[in-house]
Amino acid sequence: MIFDAPAAARLLDALHRLPGIGRRTAERMALHLLSAPDAEAYELSDALREARSRVVRCSSCGMLTEQDPCSICSDTRRDHGLICVVEHPSGVIAIEKGGSYRGVFHVLHGALNPLEGIGPDQLTVDKLLERAGGEAVNEIILATNATAEGEATAMYLMRQMQTRGVAVSRIAHGVPMGGGLEYADDVTLAHALDGRTRL
Amino acid sequence: MIFDAPAAARLLDALHRLPGIGRRTAERMALHLLSAPDAEAYELSDALREARSRVVRCSSCGMLTEQDPCSICSDTRRDHGLICVVEHPSGVIAIEKGGSYRGVFHVLHGALNPLEGIGPDQLTVDKLLERAGGEAVNEIILATNATAEGEATAMYLMRQMQTRGVAVSRIAHGVPMGGGLEYADDVTLAHALDGRTRL
Repeated sequence: MIFDAPAAARLLDALHRLPGIGRRTAERMALHLLSAPDAEAYELSDALREARSRVVRCSSCGMLTEQDPCSICSDTRRDHGLICVVEHPSGVIAIEKGGSYRGVFHVLHGALNPLEGIGPDQLTVDKLLERAGGEAVNEIILATNATAEGEATAMYLMRQMQTRGVAVSRIAHGVPMGGGLEYADDVTLAHALDGRTRL
Repeated sequence: MIFDAPAAARLLDALHRLPGIGRRTAERMALHLLSAPDAEAYELSDALREARSRVVRCSSCGMLTEQDPCSICSDTRRDHGLICVVEHPSGVIAIEKGGSYRGVFHVLHGALNPLEGIGPDQLTVDKLLERAGGEAVNEIILATNATAEGEATAMYLMRQMQTRGVAVSRIAHGVPMGGGLEYADDVTLAHALDGRTRL
């Protein structure tokens, strides 16, 4: 069958390796790309090469951008004294979609994970400490993920900032807005109770 | 933001155009491809180019293959007098996964759709009629989809075959095995009742 053949199997593997793409979806995508007209199939290949050659990391915040510094870092209407630290570019996009945040960002490009050999040097921690120290920064918001690695990274950064006398905060974790208690998992509920605020 | 930039937007569009890929999944894939190490990102681009250059349509059945004729058409243990007609290569893969079919295939690469200008000449109908006439073919099984276009294509092929005196059949449509009646839609249920078989 077609996916036993080497070139088709290689394409299937490359698609299957993408995040959130299961074997069935990858097969469907591969068959589409193999059956489509030349122009459509090569468009993906060319678009990927062009994007890879043009997109860089912002030299200030680390966000993916085609113009350095990125549109957020070069926006003078934003509060450059407020830095929200996220693990990945997707975090910036998620918070920007909300539309209410007016500060700037810092993308770590990962989280601390000693088992996989990811320490501060593999992330953009040095650059963050430099930004936090050098500029008129009022507050660092730690918005790393609510996972073991994200929490460890937040703890590590909190200590680094506190020795430098920079104010640090952590985003709230709890029951999502509009979400009933019955849909929240145990850990989220426990966190929501622990983090209750007085009215 | 990154997807407002031209090269990143082009990549996002190319991914979003793939079947079954919504905007959110395409964004996730694009961010991964833009953040990943060079080797991983270019692997998809290269794998796609290589697959496109190596994969062809089988000159006999039209299935995608890297060796012409394909592994099914060149398998002498299969019944070459039994041809199962499907719309797309995915149909061949689905039936082969079942493992019980021992005949060969014919891939139409689409279905009749006059509104979109797809007539018999845009499909591999001529080749099918040639195969049905020239070889010792006992039966043509029409396994086009149970859509308006698939049904119209089956009707058209049935008439073409009957004028040539070739036996034609249509795969059964009804309630899926293991599926309760309550999960089947009205059209499927009506079809299952009409197509009942005596015990």
